[in-house]
Amino acid sequence: MYKIDMNSDLGESFGRYTIGMDEAVLGNITSANVACGFHASDPVVMEKTIRMAKEQGVQIGAHPGFPDLMGFGRRSMQLSTGEAKAYTLYQISALGGMCRAQGVELQHVKPHGALYNMAAKDYKLAQAICQAICEYDKNLIVMALSGGELVHAARDMGLPVALEVFADRAYEEDGSLVDRRKDGAMITDEDLAIRRVIRIIKEQKVTAITGKDISVKADSICVHGDGEKAVAFVKRIHRELEKEGIEISPLK
Amino acid sequence: MYKIDMNSDLGESFGRYTIGMDEAVLGNITSANVACGFHASDPVVMEKTIRMAKEQGVQIGAHPGFPDLMGFGRRSMQLSTGEAKAYTLYQISALGGMCRAQGVELQHVKPHGALYNMAAKDYKLAQAICQAICEYDKNLIVMALSGGELVHAARDMGLPVALEVFADRAYEEDGSLVDRRKDGAMITDEDLAIRRVIRIIKEQKVTAITGKDISVKADSICVHGDGEKAVAFVKRIHRELEKEGIEISPLK
Amino acid sequence: MYKIDMNSDLGESFGRYTIGMDEAVLGNITSANVACGFHASDPVVMEKTIRMAKEQGVQIGAHPGFPDLMGFGRRSMQLSTGEAKAYTLYQISALGGMCRAQGVELQHVKPHGALYNMAAKDYKLAQAICQAICEYDKNLIVMALSGGELVHAARDMGLPVALEVFADRAYEEDGSLVDRRKDGAMITDEDLAIRRVIRIIKEQKVTAITGKDISVKADSICVHGDGEKAVAFVKRIHRELEKEGIEISPLK
Amino acid sequence: MYKIDMNSDLGESFGRYTIGMDEAVLGNITSANVACGFHASDPVVMEKTIRMAKEQGVQIGAHPGFPDLMGFGRRSMQLSTGEAKAYTLYQISALGGMCRAQGVELQHVKPHGALYNMAAKDYKLAQAICQAICEYDKNLIVMALSGGELVHAARDMGLPVALEVFADRAYEEDGSLVDRRKDGAMITDEDLAIRRVIRIIKEQKVTAITGKDISVKADSICVHGDGEKAVAFVKRIHRELEKEGIEISPLK
Repeated sequence: MYKIDMNSDLGESFGRYTIGMDEAVLGNITSANVACGFHASDPVVMEKTIRMAKEQGVQIGAHPGFPDLMGFGRRSMQLSTGEAKAYTLYQISALGGMCRAQGVELQHVKPHGALYNMAAKDYKLAQAICQAICEYDKNLIVMALSGGELVHAARDMGLPVALEVFADRAYEEDGSLVDRRKDGAMITDEDLAIRRVIRIIKEQKVTAITGKDISVKADSICVHGDGEKAVAFVKRIHRELEKEGIEISPLK
Repeated sequence: MYKIDMNSDLGESFGRYTIGMDEAVLGNITSANVACGFHASDPVVMEKTIRMAKEQGVQIGAHPGFPDLMGFGRRSMQLSTGEAKAYTLYQISALGGMCRAQGVELQHVKPHGALYNMAAKDYKLAQAICQAICEYDKNLIVMALSGGELVHAARDMGLPVALEVFADRAYEEDGSLVDRRKDGAMITDEDLAIRRVIRIIKEQKVTAITGKDISVKADSICVHGDGEKAVAFVKRIHRELEKEGIEISPLK
Repeated sequence: MYKIDMNSDLGESFGRYTIGMDEAVLGNITSANVACGFHASDPVVMEKTIRMAKEQGVQIGAHPGFPDLMGFGRRSMQLSTGEAKAYTLYQISALGGMCRAQGVELQHVKPHGALYNMAAKDYKLAQAICQAICEYDKNLIVMALSGGELVHAARDMGLPVALEVFADRAYEEDGSLVDRRKDGAMITDEDLAIRRVIRIIKEQKVTAITGKDISVKADSICVHGDGEKAVAFVKRIHRELEKEGIEISPLK
Repeated sequence: MYKIDMNSDLGESFGRYTIGMDEAVLGNITSANVACGFHASDPVVMEKTIRMAKEQGVQIGAHPGFPDLMGFGRRSMQLSTGEAKAYTLYQISALGGMCRAQGVELQHVKPHGALYNMAAKDYKLAQAICQAICEYDKNLIVMALSGGELVHAARDMGLPVALEVFADRAYEEDGSLVDRRKDGAMITDEDLAIRRVIRIIKEQKVTAITGKDISVKADSICVHGDGEKAVAFVKRIHRELEKEGIEISPLK
């Protein structure tokens, strides 16, 4: 029997600013990555997002990012490892305590945006993030780009890992994501995207942008809720995976 | 045998900005109120402050404030009760998780600056703060102005309370602090300040600004570490209280 | 011949967060109040908003607010007059310089949200705001609630004033706006709202919430662009005023 | 007759946080680089710094930085050129307008911290910064690392340039500054530092870290005011240069 987790970035609204159709997405995923107030979100939004996820039975993870609200955490910042560790620990703690207040356990941690991308390539940064996770709770699952440095750092520290893949992104031969600025980086054909995901789950294989088949393991697929089209695709992929006999279930 | 806690606001530095002689103060107090990143502090400062307090055996409390770094949390802001509750919970959680990462338990919560002053007068705001504390941990001690609304709200919710007094502030007849802008609001004569504190501890009485004696109970005295003179006074008050047979000990 | 300016708050988006249908609104107004980066907006948004307003021939005003992005500048904050003056001057300067870079002149200044409401009631605060405007440019028009303290402070300093009225708000007998939390504060009947505006312009009279007719002068009507319904109403009110022979024209 | 400008970064305090002995430094320099509220400073600090500089007859420049108060603008951030341009224009405008309010003209613009270092190496970023300066005022002097890309970008756009050198930093053979993390990067011997500066001014030569003499031109020397020792050195270097017959004078 095949199994996969579906995760999405939620709770990214801020004050009077709204981003994402969180309520619509929550009915179709098993893990929610909740922003923690640095690159997005605020305490009121976090509280509401935890409550909605809890009501829908969706597992919650911390989604720490760079302290850059103006850039939505998508711009690289050169933090020291001490800063990266402390910022991650602060954000996990903030969300973790708010979950505890609602009687919910944190399931995982997934870095956001530029922090996610940098941690996939920089072992020292990945280590700093894992250090924060270890200190907070050694049972938290690290959700990381399948094949990236964060996977290695987490395993080296004995943390449980969930390998993440992207339905809408092309892969290089070495298993890294094709840079968004390159042609063909995004898989825009929905049928193709779904076939690729199914193949990754069943055969652990995907065709790289060069045409060569490569190995990719997946514990979780990342889906998006930032518009009606995106939400419709989330529903469709959920349905198609179930039709294929793949169980959609959280990581724990 | 008389007993009193001595508390001070610490961990108020931010990035490259330094405020307070934290290390010097820590040797003379029993409870540290640590800023949580809203009105002051950042995750690196918080981590360091927790470590120093732990090394010196000083108990740690969360010191949540308004989201107003530019005003150091000293300017009134009209939050809704929902905002006040969520902001407080976020800040307690952030600090609480960082304490847990270092194997330390949170002892108490004391609101900062304008939030402290407003909560002493506004029962609904005080209730929102206590709601956050309750949800996080019902055993956390609420440190509040002796006689103020936060004391009532905390007791009404069954939370343990520590009554706080100020060595350097004058009192009105109703037990509230004299407004800082009024003449005589600050007790600048150190000998007088110390005599007043000793009397509060031993007789539970203080002379109000009107000349009338009023009742004041104290579990903790607030002292400051924002300069060499302030630190010298902290050392002196510590010494003089011990000479009077008063034990300086934390709240728990 | 009757004349009126139509103004709207624009440029309130921030980073990846979007608020307001600015492009749709710009075709129907004569004055744009552009947020300056404190309660909303960022430099990229400001630059784009100035360019769009310029292209549509809409006059630009600075819309300074409290340093409270999380609360969108809608929460009262107790600033000192020195702070209020410096914050206002900073924001006018930032927007003014960005206008100058595009060859556009600032037309007016209108405080935002809680700062607007507080300045309508607090002469000293209003004075601090006008002080900033005076120092920047004595020819800038102060846009202020018709009948409020900001009007008096501006006139006392010799600054030109534009009296603002609201199509969708009820008035007290003293000319102040009915508090949003009171029943009947909002005029939701569009036909009624338009009739009231026309009467204000032609007769300088409006019926207060008590039923009594009061005098109200208007140089500008505030309209909103925060949704499709709001934008449709802006178009309609524009059309109906022109049908009544009222010219829609900027303040200068 | 030899001439040199002496510049220092000022106005870096924020709210209740103080950095730098601005008053002491102002008596010994001719150009002040004033922070603009992104990496440091706030409107009240900016207003006060402008007033102090004006009183001492010191010329004022804008010192724009990254939007990273927590990192004091010292951490690299990957901005788009559009963001870099808009952020720079916003900051120059804010300070420029506040200067105008006090009847002072802006003299120059010098990027701060990581933005300064990145602009010295990245022509496209340097161009974005110069674009902002051009749009604001083509007569503003660009203060830039002697030999760096910002010098080239400014000249290519026809902006006046002031070449900056550092008394306390070692140079590579290519004229770039030795990375702070390398041994020998800082010139800690004050006598040596002063001899080097005098030689740069009189002979336009300095000995690189490799031992080889290289050409370096200087219009301005950067000095620091972040402590009593630093201020004493500023006074000494001022005195020693005058003894050598070098006139300390502003750029314009």
